[in-house]
Amino acid sequence: MKYDKFLGFGLALALMCPSLPGISFAAETGKSQTIVRCGEQPSVQGSEKFFTGRARITPLYPAANGMRSSGGSVTFEPGARSNWHVHPVGQVLIVTDGVGRTQEWGGPVREIRAGDVIICPAGVKHWHGASPATAMTHISVCEENEPGRVVDWMEAVTDEQYAGK
Amino acid sequence: MKYDKFLGFGLALALMCPSLPGISFAAETGKSQTIVRCGEQPSVQGSEKFFTGRARITPLYPAANGMRSSGGSVTFEPGARSNWHVHPVGQVLIVTDGVGRTQEWGGPVREIRAGDVIICPAGVKHWHGASPATAMTHISVCEENEPGRVVDWMEAVTDEQYAGK
Repeated sequence: MKYDKFLGFGLALALMCPSLPGISFAAETGKSQTIVRCGEQPSVQGSEKFFTGRARITPLYPAANGMRSSGGSVTFEPGARSNWHVHPVGQVLIVTDGVGRTQEWGGPVREIRAGDVIICPAGVKHWHGASPATAMTHISVCEENEPGRVVDWMEAVTDEQYAGK
Repeated sequence: MKYDKFLGFGLALALMCPSLPGISFAAETGKSQTIVRCGEQPSVQGSEKFFTGRARITPLYPAANGMRSSGGSVTFEPGARSNWHVHPVGQVLIVTDGVGRTQEWGGPVREIRAGDVIICPAGVKHWHGASPATAMTHISVCEENEPGRVVDWMEAVTDEQYAGK
């Protein structure tokens, strides 16, 4: 059982990500392999401060143990999207289900589909979300330049912007 | 079309990962968002120098644009597994399909299932693969401490080790 000390034995470390309030990762600082079982890390609803519509976020792994990336899975209900935002280091999105949309500032709205990978360098203002009629799930991997800082949030995406008008 | 310069316009940069010969990522160095469409990055078979049995690797994203993590998806056919290896910074595995096995040196063989997340800190000798009768697919995210170095490969996992004997 020594490899199962991650959760349930009082040694869990909850890392709060200040950029995404309400998201907590379980993590361990030891030097052995940790298996986080499916279902052990609760999902949370994305805050209306940062999302339009319903977005459900499931933590996957924290920036810990010497790694500066962290990961989570986000499911956007139809029509839902993130606010505009930038990442201080960068972000990669791996679309795992459905059809969605993304846009960088000044560019067109673009469709993204399961299996697509979106690479967004540092400082590029963008948003991502579902398509109007179909949900979209992506894994998000972000890297931080200081503890807990992986995203700088901006204004909401208007209905006109979302529609590509 | 300016956002599609990633592939097909002569500006693609193929990053070879010396730790996984034969794996190439397409990448761009510009400061705009890149969408890599499903199917644009060919899968390769894992080398028999590093894998026992058949493992198919699909690149997802390179360590580029200021990010030091890279990602790929690996599907292990039943009975297939990686060699023993360590990561200089660390690795996270997100099991996306099937049932597999993993083990760290000195520990028991442990089952891993779709939805599980495995966190392996730097320097922990381990292996991962399918279960004997069922395939397993995971996304692997590694970080590098020098360009292209994300894994140090070691000896094959014997049939006895794989069986947990």
